[in-house]
Amino acid sequence: MSSADSNLEIASFTPYPITHHPVQIEKNEESITVIWDHGHKSEFHYLWLRDNCHCPQCISTATREQTFEICDVPFTIKASNAYITDDHRIVIEWDYENHVSKYHPGWLLSHCYSEEVVQTKQWKPIIWDKEKISHELPKTQSHALIESDAELLTWLRSLRDYGIGVVADVETKQSALKAITDRIAFMRESNYGTLFDVKITAGANTSANTTLRLPLHTDLSARELQPGLQFLHCLVNDATGGESIFVDGFKIAEYMREHCPEEFRDLTTIPMSFNNKDPYCDYHYRGTVIATDSNGEVTEVRHANFIRGPIDVPSHQTMALYKAYQCFILLTREPKFQLFFRLTAGEMVVFDNRRVLHARNAFDLKAGMRQLQGCYIDRDEFLSRIRILERNTELN
Amino acid sequence: MSSADSNLEIASFTPYPITHHPVQIEKNEESITVIWDHGHKSEFHYLWLRDNCHCPQCISTATREQTFEICDVPFTIKASNAYITDDHRIVIEWDYENHVSKYHPGWLLSHCYSEEVVQTKQWKPIIWDKEKISHELPKTQSHALIESDAELLTWLRSLRDYGIGVVADVETKQSALKAITDRIAFMRESNYGTLFDVKITAGANTSANTTLRLPLHTDLSARELQPGLQFLHCLVNDATGGESIFVDGFKIAEYMREHCPEEFRDLTTIPMSFNNKDPYCDYHYRGTVIATDSNGEVTEVRHANFIRGPIDVPSHQTMALYKAYQCFILLTREPKFQLFFRLTAGEMVVFDNRRVLHARNAFDLKAGMRQLQGCYIDRDEFLSRIRILERNTELN
Repeated sequence: MSSADSNLEIASFTPYPITHHPVQIEKNEESITVIWDHGHKSEFHYLWLRDNCHCPQCISTATREQTFEICDVPFTIKASNAYITDDHRIVIEWDYENHVSKYHPGWLLSHCYSEEVVQTKQWKPIIWDKEKISHELPKTQSHALIESDAELLTWLRSLRDYGIGVVADVETKQSALKAITDRIAFMRESNYGTLFDVKITAGANTSANTTLRLPLHTDLSARELQPGLQFLHCLVNDATGGESIFVDGFKIAEYMREHCPEEFRDLTTIPMSFNNKDPYCDYHYRGTVIATDSNGEVTEVRHANFIRGPIDVPSHQTMALYKAYQCFILLTREPKFQLFFRLTAGEMVVFDNRRVLHARNAFDLKAGMRQLQGCYIDRDEFLSRIRILERNTELN
Repeated sequence: MSSADSNLEIASFTPYPITHHPVQIEKNEESITVIWDHGHKSEFHYLWLRDNCHCPQCISTATREQTFEICDVPFTIKASNAYITDDHRIVIEWDYENHVSKYHPGWLLSHCYSEEVVQTKQWKPIIWDKEKISHELPKTQSHALIESDAELLTWLRSLRDYGIGVVADVETKQSALKAITDRIAFMRESNYGTLFDVKITAGANTSANTTLRLPLHTDLSARELQPGLQFLHCLVNDATGGESIFVDGFKIAEYMREHCPEEFRDLTTIPMSFNNKDPYCDYHYRGTVIATDSNGEVTEVRHANFIRGPIDVPSHQTMALYKAYQCFILLTREPKFQLFFRLTAGEMVVFDNRRVLHARNAFDLKAGMRQLQGCYIDRDEFLSRIRILERNTELN
């Protein structure tokens, strides 16, 4: 937005470049239809337009947050006049309180909510099996992430889309992980702290800190919000065994949707209980193994057999839930879905813990040590960081 | 559980006192029916029983986590024999791998999943309006919370049930808040840090740090997981105005369910967008203002008009969503639902930020300063702490 009209438009922090101009406005009963120079039509309701007035009476100039509340105008508010200015803004004169609103064409077109536009805006994950990820696994170098915003953005977008990536050449010292996460956001704390070590611990309160095989799972499944990104930085791996396995939980879910629709339905609707107990904490969460959004898209997988609690659904659902759960676990064990590799010292794997299941084979310490350092960053912070990097890229 | 049979039963960290004994077992096709000495009947499926075997082959003796996976036995597994021991355990001999499982009667009865039992276990909030909360507002003293586990447990349970409470006599120094939260759990970090100050700030990135009126809202509604408990500790309040208002969002939701069922349905099903942007972060979340669980119970309210983003649902839902949203906001403004009070120095208010909306009147600093210190603790940590206090209480 130009500063010339800043008295009428409080700019968003996000840039909205002008790609098209409005050429015509039609007034309807509850809305206007805007026709753009590329032929697209957008319907904007009067209430919506009044709600999104960007004038300094409606938006705080300091915080750019809305001070106006939509329930303070009549539900039937209408435009008494609507026109396009020479500089391609749309102006609405309201039939209530003589208020006038003015809309920037870049902002307005970006916020068109016609059904076909809303659908194309939906982010889609790139789902994978062993074959696909073995060719496409996103890889980068530690120094590139630290030195270049462009590389960081490219890498974070890949990580968002595939749900997994590997960073090479990370120094094998404890602070090296944090140098990378500091480029993204603060860490998510849990009862295991922020930075945690995965190594043999006397009196371990989690199977992670034993030499046991860990079957495929998501971390902290007994918390309402499972941690988003999980970082695992390999400091040393001279032990025998301990290979890592990763499976795209979204792939398993989509496979079930196609091939075992009843089991898919049951895993998305019948809740499991998850318990995580030790002498100092006692977490409990009840939720479905597969979560879907209001469009039926898979948004999350929640699975850790070793901290699953007793099934506690009504009797008539018990066997159906076991059947669906067995189907799910057996699929995750199929090698065609598994990315299998051995972390070496200086490698870091990062994955969406709410999507990608991870496992570790049992190991033997006779040949040497095995130690990883890990931490979490939640999806909110991760996605915010991508938006900020995109915002800066578009501004420059 | 007694130590005598610890070779067969890996105890949970939670105590399960024996209140009744099993007196009879009936074998069915897919399950057994256990008849208890008080007449109650429990159905336990074979798969469920095999899944919940507590022997050291099935449970790690170190972490007490399950190592057995239920998909490694046939779906049709059955008891070849089932009987009650002299010490009131139920023993099942399996028709697969000669495995034997033994069940502690306290544990087993606690995990009965018959429909009527599961329903009575459901926690129910105590919902309130102005009249009710003015008589029942949970109050305690800072020193009591710090010195007594019993008082802490009583207080936390009230806070869980009412969603709000007040602590008196908190020292008016910055560390005093943390002395109380340390009794519960670690704080939830956000882009505002862990401990945050609510005071006038130059270049404020949130309306909280201005003198502006803040309408009723939940904090961080643009994050997927809104923070659970919010603590607001008043260090000084000599300003004119700035009174606090609290409204039970669950009450508003239940009122709408009863009196405006269409608007209730729309607010629980049509999503809103929430944006929280500043120069360094750009959070976005899309979700319903009222969230319900699979039983239709209200679990969460999400509402902050000043960081709500433009409505972006398909055209045919736009007006319905505005209608429902207006209905909701207008109800929150009704004095009969509002707890209204002025925080004084040394008082701390704590509330469930995902349930109780809070607001602040505008204030004027001519008469003096106004400064609060705040922080968040998530529901998971809060509820875990209650379970640990209960566990210790039952053991002692």
